[in-house]
Parts: sequence; C-alpha cells; structure tokens
Amino acid sequence: MFTLHQTDPHSLARRGSLVTPHGVIQTPVFMPVGTQGSVKAIHPDELRALDAQIILGNTYHLAVRPGMDTMRAAGGLHKFENWNGPILTDSGGFQVFSLGKIRKIKEEGVHFQNHVDGSPMFIGPETSMEIQATLGSDIAMLFDECPPHPCEADYAAKSLDLTLRWARRCRDWVDKNQPMTNGQPQLHFGIVQGSSYQELREKSAKELVSIGFDGYAVGGVSVGESEAEMMAAVEHAVPFLPHDKPRYAMGLGTPPQMIEMVARGIDMFDCVLPTRLARNGTFFTNEGTKAIKNACYTNDFSDLDEDTHPSCKGFSRAYIRHLIKAGEILGLRLISLHNLHFYLSLLGRARKAIEGGFFAEFRAEFVSNYQTRETSET
Amino acid sequence: MFTLHQTDPHSLARRGSLVTPHGVIQTPVFMPVGTQGSVKAIHPDELRALDAQIILGNTYHLAVRPGMDTMRAAGGLHKFENWNGPILTDSGGFQVFSLGKIRKIKEEGVHFQNHVDGSPMFIGPETSMEIQATLGSDIAMLFDECPPHPCEADYAAKSLDLTLRWARRCRDWVDKNQPMTNGQPQLHFGIVQGSSYQELREKSAKELVSIGFDGYAVGGVSVGESEAEMMAAVEHAVPFLPHDKPRYAMGLGTPPQMIEMVARGIDMFDCVLPTRLARNGTFFTNEGTKAIKNACYTNDFSDLDEDTHPSCKGFSRAYIRHLIKAGEILGLRLISLHNLHFYLSLLGRARKAIEGGFFAEFRAEFVSNYQTRETSET
Repeated sequence: MFTLHQTDPHSLARRGSLVTPHGVIQTPVFMPVGTQGSVKAIHPDELRALDAQIILGNTYHLAVRPGMDTMRAAGGLHKFENWNGPILTDSGGFQVFSLGKIRKIKEEGVHFQNHVDGSPMFIGPETSMEIQATLGSDIAMLFDECPPHPCEADYAAKSLDLTLRWARRCRDWVDKNQPMTNGQPQLHFGIVQGSSYQELREKSAKELVSIGFDGYAVGGVSVGESEAEMMAAVEHAVPFLPHDKPRYAMGLGTPPQMIEMVARGIDMFDCVLPTRLARNGTFFTNEGTKAIKNACYTNDFSDLDEDTHPSCKGFSRAYIRHLIKAGEILGLRLISLHNLHFYLSLLGRARKAIEGGFFAEFRAEFVSNYQTRETSET
Repeated sequence: MFTLHQTDPHSLARRGSLVTPHGVIQTPVFMPVGTQGSVKAIHPDELRALDAQIILGNTYHLAVRPGMDTMRAAGGLHKFENWNGPILTDSGGFQVFSLGKIRKIKEEGVHFQNHVDGSPMFIGPETSMEIQATLGSDIAMLFDECPPHPCEADYAAKSLDLTLRWARRCRDWVDKNQPMTNGQPQLHFGIVQGSSYQELREKSAKELVSIGFDGYAVGGVSVGESEAEMMAAVEHAVPFLPHDKPRYAMGLGTPPQMIEMVARGIDMFDCVLPTRLARNGTFFTNEGTKAIKNACYTNDFSDLDEDTHPSCKGFSRAYIRHLIKAGEILGLRLISLHNLHFYLSLLGRARKAIEGGFFAEFRAEFVSNYQTRETSET
C-alpha cells in the first residue's frame, strides 16, 4: 500500500506514495481540512485545480450534523460532499474532548453532550469505527484519548493504557467487520500518544505496531506545548515506527514546522491555518504571514504573491484588502485559495527537493527565510 | 449604439443589442449586482461561466470604501475588480437617501454622513458624474432624487423638478468633460422619476428625452409600492421613451415581475434578490422560491433543480441544506450560483421567446406556474 521511493541522505525525510481506495497520494503531503463536509469556502472543483490529493472530514462534526441517518442515506461522505478523491476521517476523539460540553470518560468510551444542541451522545472505539465505516473514508483513525497539555505523568500513563486498550478494540472491530470503500478495504491508522513523556511515546509506538495498522499518526501535538516539545514528541515516536508505513503528524502546523517534521520522517499533515487565517485576511508567503488589512496595502496593486494560485492572479492586494474590510466573501475565498495553494505547493516543493537530492538546502533556505510570528498564527 | 432586432406582436417586448465600450449586451438582460466591487460570493470566472453580460457597481459604496483615491490609483473599477466586461454604475442617489446617516438635500446636491465611519460627504450631479467617470463604467446613471413611498403630490412635483435640473447639470458636465472608458465614450442614462403620479412620469420622460441621453431608466420603483403601482410607473413612462434607446427598470424584481416588465417594453434589470436570498438558503425554481432549510430536504439527494448551473450539479439539496445550517460558505456559494443562473437564463429564455415569436405563450406559462410569496422575497 505504501511505497518508499526515495530517502534523504541528511535527514529522515522520505518520498513515498500511498495507495488508497479512491486514489494514490504522493507524500509528503498536505491534507486540507473539510471539518463539516466542506473545505471552508472552497468548491471541490477548486480543490482539484489546487492539486489537493486528499482531504479530511471530521467524524464528530458529521455525526452531530447532518447526523448518521443522512450520511447513511447519502451513501457515505464522498457522495455527500461530491468529492471522489481520497478522504481521511479523524476518530472524533479530539473533538469530543475539546467540543463536547460535558464529557465522562469511561472504559467503554466517552459520554458527552454535543456542541450544537446539547443532546447526549456516546462515542467509543467500536462506535467510532462504525461511523467511519459508514462515512466510507479511505483512511480511518483509531479512537484515542487526547490528554490535555500539560499532563501529569501518572495521568498520561493511565490515559495511554486506555488508548491502547481502545486501539485493540478498534482492531477487533475492523477485523470482524472488514469495512470497505469504493470496493476496497478501508485503511486504518493508529495514533501514538504519551504526552511529553519519551518512554510513553516509545511504549505507545511499539504496542501499536505490534497490534498492526496501515499507518501511524503522532497525536497529542499542537495542543499548547512548545515547538521544542512538539518536535520531541515526533522524535520519540518515529524510531519505533516501521519504514514501510506512512506517518502522519496530526493538526500541524506552520510552514516551517511542517518542513521540520518532514525532516523528522513525517509523511502527512493536516491543518486549519490556511483557511482559518484567510478569514481575518492573513496570507502566507515565503517570508512569513502578512496581514492584508495593513494600511501599506491600500494602494498596492500587485498580486498577493508572485507565486499565487492562477485563480488569484489579477486580484490586487488593494482589492483583496478592500474586500476583507468590506466583509465581502470573495476576499476570504481568494486568500483561502492562495493559502491552500501555498501549503499544498510547499509540500510539493519538499517532494521535489527530496527527489532531486537537495532537501537539506531547501529546508535550510525555507526555514531561515520564513519569519515565524507564532502569536498571529494560532 | 442600441439596435432593435425584433419586437413581439402581442406586447411591447423587444429583442435588442446595446454596444458598450467593453462589449455588446443582448437584451432583455439581467445585470448581477456588485455593490462593493464584487457580486457577493462570486468569482469573476464564475460570472463568465454564468454568461453574465454586464454587472453593476455602486457609486456611493465605492466612493465611501475603498474611496476614490484608491479607485483612481487602480485605474478604474474594471481593473480594480478584475472584470473586463461591461459595467453599469448607479449615481449614488438612491444609496445616499437610504444609507446616508444624516442628509440635507440642497440645490447643489446632497450633504450626508456615510454609513461606514459617519464622516461628512457631498454628492451632487457633477460629483456623481465625475466619480462615475473615474470608475470608468460603461454606463453611468444620472444623479437623481429618489422620493420616498408614499409621496405627496406636491413633494413629488418639486422633487422631479430638482431631478430635472440635476439632469441638465449632469448633461452639461458630460458634454464638457467627455468621459471615456476603454477608449470609447461612456454612455449616460437618464432616470424617469415622478413617484406614482402619471402626469409627473410623463413630464419626466419627455423632458429627459428632450435633453437627450443614451438610454432611459425608470427609477423610484420597488421602494415599497404595490406591484400594480410598480407596473403603472413603467406603463406611464414607456410611451414617451424613444424606441431606439434601451430602457432599464431599476432594482427589479421577482422573476414574474421581470417578465411582466419585458412585456411592457423594458430591456434591462438589476436585482439583489438572487444573491441576498441565497444567504438564508432560498433558491429559485420555475414554481417559485423554496427554502432549503425545510425539513423535507433533509434526505433529498436530488440537485437543487433539474436546470441548475453546471457548477451546482452533483451537490444535493440534502448537502446544501447541511451546509447552510452549518454556516458553511460553500452553501451560499452554490445557491448564489444557482439563483444567478436562474435569473440570467430566465432573461435568456425571454430573448429566445421573442426571437421565436412565442413570447406571449412563454409569459403566460411562466407567470402562471410561478407561485409568488412576496413576503419571503423582500
């Protein structure tokens, strides 16, 4: 399923491809986020024009609204949202912990009230797998507990043990029910947890690998920890993950963070920043993020960036600034397109750099040119 | 400039074409509204895919924000909004009366505070013409007073006299300054006022024609009067307007109103309904408007309408309902596209019906099938 084409001699970066039921994904890859069944403000035709290879959907959000009756009647998420490329769904775990109003974590799963109408819901390992089977995603994520940050060692250890017991129950459900999508077996990824504890990350990775999944994610990152801790969490997991399976760092990150993660052996990324920041007028460039509302763009009639998406060409910074200030949706559409193009093509540049044997130079140049302003990006 | 190709034997409907500096417009025509320099939520590439022949821009809104310094620096509205087709700009009069916070109507023009930051502004006949010359629209509208509804006969008569004096000042400014766009003379349309008084409508039309303009609009309609009064206002003006100039009913209307206006000799329409109603999930069909939020569409997996726009095909009512309820922008994008397609193609059907000699049948069938629910449309 996953083929490793090339590895970088100076880092753990790697160039691969992953076969999914709805198509082949070239890695490293960025995956736009379509939480509620839509990549915010973007039409599927535009996703294709952006060369998006795979998009995300959120199990929790879709189970709450429109609900599984409609998803089942629709024949799954691909048909519902009119996207026939690969889809990855998360397990709902992260959202249950961050959005569910009142939640009780028990051995069987999590009881909570949803954020839309407050009605009581339950998601456990089997429920999550069943929902994702109904959604028909190409890649389903295991149901895990995502511990908060910071997290006491004792709680982290107990949480990890629960997550591992849930992982076995997910595996059992999948083995028994053999979920299919587009006539082929759905893929399932385990999620390495363990908070900021090296020995827990190692244990988590080893046990998941012994259970056996189609890929492995690093979870519990980008939850408020420092960038150094985030990098460490990945560094503590990757050595224990198999070379012949894809690795996914969940919910990351800024452009230099992704490139640094690629250098640490990560293949897949998802992040809401490109579309979320677009809505307040922040756009990405090789020099860092810029705020279109700044007065310096009032009469700036150049494009957002030299290397912007074709659909954004001819629309000046002055015009887009006006649209954002006037609350016109076309403004956030254009910046969303530009930002997604930046993220998607950044990973494309990383792929080319690995193929061409110049990833070290690309990484050094990109990261040093990019001015991170973390406060404006989170 | 305006060529009459065909007239309907059973009504005043006519099939024509108007040459403007940025292209030829086939009439009768619907003109999407781009108030603040953008047809709400729609990309210019989509306007082209919709076969939009001409769009509107609003002088008042653009003069307030981004302001004329930016519009001048941009080189006009076409370049600013990246649209190279024909543009019609209104005079600012209607918005000054409806949006300006405090307004004083004087002989020289109107003093008011704008709705964005409350700063004092002035627009008079010459200012309006000068702003529209800077915007570089293909068709500029005369600066008029749009009296409220209802309106006393005495006030309506005085208001009309002021509008006619302003019309002469507009004509003088244009004759002296000869505004050009795309290397050709800008066109200027007079606006027939006179509230609901037949003799004032007649007087207004006759005097404007004696001054001489490139086209004539009927203004002061769709301001709260009954549909019968709206039709009467047009019927009282049209007989005194020349056959060889285009006629434009401003700010109209529902689909059957437009068809009835075509039958009364009107060539051009603009209306915010297709995009405004899209934002609360209302879509147009031959049977009338429908509300996508209704529960009956929860598991309705058919397209919005059989004859929807290609970019809306494959997106079910159930999916679009979900998007609108979840506040996803793609939902209003899809309904906006569908509604604009409905309006634009409705006028296309009217053109074909006039050409084919079956406009009377088309009109009767369309108007009788369409269930008007005026309260939900205004």
